[in-house]
Amino acid sequence: MTTSIFILYYQLKPTTRDNFFKYEYNDPYKDPELLLNPYISNNYKRVNACIVVLVRNDELSSLKSSMRQFEDRWNKKYNYPYVFLNDVEFSKEFIKQTSSFTQSETKYAVIPKEMWSYPSWINQTKAAENRNKAIEDKIIYGGSESYRHMCRFNSGFFFRHPALLEYDYYWRLEPSVEFMCDIDYDPFLFMKKNDLYYGFTISLYEFKNTIPTLWNTTKNFMKKYPHYIKENNALKWITKDDGENYNLCHFWSNFEIANLNFWRSEQYIKYFEYLDEEGGFFYERWGDAPVHSIALALFTDKSKIHFFNDISYLHAPYQHCPINKDFHESGRCHCDPNKSFDLDWYSCTEKWWALES
Amino acid sequence: MTTSIFILYYQLKPTTRDNFFKYEYNDPYKDPELLLNPYISNNYKRVNACIVVLVRNDELSSLKSSMRQFEDRWNKKYNYPYVFLNDVEFSKEFIKQTSSFTQSETKYAVIPKEMWSYPSWINQTKAAENRNKAIEDKIIYGGSESYRHMCRFNSGFFFRHPALLEYDYYWRLEPSVEFMCDIDYDPFLFMKKNDLYYGFTISLYEFKNTIPTLWNTTKNFMKKYPHYIKENNALKWITKDDGENYNLCHFWSNFEIANLNFWRSEQYIKYFEYLDEEGGFFYERWGDAPVHSIALALFTDKSKIHFFNDISYLHAPYQHCPINKDFHESGRCHCDPNKSFDLDWYSCTEKWWALES
Repeated sequence: MTTSIFILYYQLKPTTRDNFFKYEYNDPYKDPELLLNPYISNNYKRVNACIVVLVRNDELSSLKSSMRQFEDRWNKKYNYPYVFLNDVEFSKEFIKQTSSFTQSETKYAVIPKEMWSYPSWINQTKAAENRNKAIEDKIIYGGSESYRHMCRFNSGFFFRHPALLEYDYYWRLEPSVEFMCDIDYDPFLFMKKNDLYYGFTISLYEFKNTIPTLWNTTKNFMKKYPHYIKENNALKWITKDDGENYNLCHFWSNFEIANLNFWRSEQYIKYFEYLDEEGGFFYERWGDAPVHSIALALFTDKSKIHFFNDISYLHAPYQHCPINKDFHESGRCHCDPNKSFDLDWYSCTEKWWALES
Repeated sequence: MTTSIFILYYQLKPTTRDNFFKYEYNDPYKDPELLLNPYISNNYKRVNACIVVLVRNDELSSLKSSMRQFEDRWNKKYNYPYVFLNDVEFSKEFIKQTSSFTQSETKYAVIPKEMWSYPSWINQTKAAENRNKAIEDKIIYGGSESYRHMCRFNSGFFFRHPALLEYDYYWRLEPSVEFMCDIDYDPFLFMKKNDLYYGFTISLYEFKNTIPTLWNTTKNFMKKYPHYIKENNALKWITKDDGENYNLCHFWSNFEIANLNFWRSEQYIKYFEYLDEEGGFFYERWGDAPVHSIALALFTDKSKIHFFNDISYLHAPYQHCPINKDFHESGRCHCDPNKSFDLDWYSCTEKWWALES
């Protein structure tokens, strides 16, 4: 009996696939202007944008693996510059190998100490005790200091790092990721033309034990600065009770194509500083993904956030692969649409489609 | 004390890396003629060769992933034709997606029943009992009938499949493999120019329990047909006691660039038939890798076998990655030379270098 009800439920429930096809997708491939120059001459006028890579010297091979696919599927046609960031100096070998791996300009910059250290108000004894507790609680990266500095840097500093100041847009690239579809247009131009702030491929639920007090801190911020909350925002995507609780949905920020000026805005800087004063980057293990996502959901019109359906992206163990048949029959993609994480119960992307439509 | 002796031993023992650099490698990149046309015009005269892919319909995505890298790193410049083989008809979807994934000609062929079934002399009851025993003994693929048909097909039939008859050389390609270095010349032309029979990237030890009687059967064959044993052969690579025992070394045959006519030769056909009559493809679980490798080691001059150092190849869990620095500093490779299986104790490639030098 229970089984029959279960089957009936699944037969009646519209599938994730159906929901995607109902969703009004802003499809770059439907903009003839974007497709005018898929293969680029030397005269192509690039958007003021760069590829940002926060990486360690010992990640050279896995970074080159990412760059190989990133170049082959897209950037060899556009040659956007790379900005490599590290909290220590890059090795000669790293610079030699990465710069010979692309026709693009490559820049290498060290992160200033003040962007990668404890602020004066952090009680480092308490932070260390909490890390030990996080290890006991088996929190992922719970014991790591550098992971916390990284999350704080990605939350509050990368967009104002000296090497990034000249740019308006960035694409975040990490080691060991894969791109499984040809990208035959310039996503930066698409972002600029549509005045978009943020593009994502994968969304999912955060581990609650990494951010126990993040939402309460956010609610206090919202009470203090109610004028920062944008109309037509995406609050409904991150809470089902009108802001009382956070549902843990966030964009997976290891992939980001976004407008740097959103992070440089008054409301975001204030939000970051408010969070930073609270100390949760160190006392808990707040990630840049929920911080970015909550800020986007509150401070932007939801139409400024774009789901890049056509960009197939893998960061183990999850991948996004377009489920539209034409991507697979045209020779554009080599991913398996049945493995697309969008179709997983742990993805928040179906909720995104529902929000948009 | 034991530790010191151990350390001393490792300090005195030449490393695998040293052995590679001592080995006289026939380097295609040192042949100016081969490098004349790395990027090919429409007039390039291809060798009479093809890419052979034995694959199932449900392996489409993982095959496309292999093809993506195979095309990007090499074949888009040469456009060698593909021959896809299957024991059942290829689906329309498979044909549509794979043919749109390459500029090359694509051919799809079914394997005739007689190349993928039990010969009349096989006792199928005994074969089934032995498979059950192989499962109990936890032999890899021990219970699989189709795996045995595949090994037998790759040992004795693919080179005389009707779709292959017109070709002299082949490159065997499998789903889910990776190629991590640009290949800037035509390996088929290199094979032909040097009159080579076989090229490999990875070698290792076979699981003894898959081939309990293969070597004794081979020794009986050698007694019966001593004139087939070639002078200057590679017997020393597969045995350390002048043929008494097989050391289990074999070329990993999921990658092969080879001359089809070697398999079509009298000595090889006779060897295959001798093995096939013995029934070990079904009663045991003889692989095509040791069968090919033993035949090569006995029936060819060892100079006919080539180690493709410059072709970086990954078939999980093993990979070959060139350890020469220039491959990594020139932007040609994105693999990690420290992960190259050649350096592993379970690889037989160091023995190959020793044999050659």
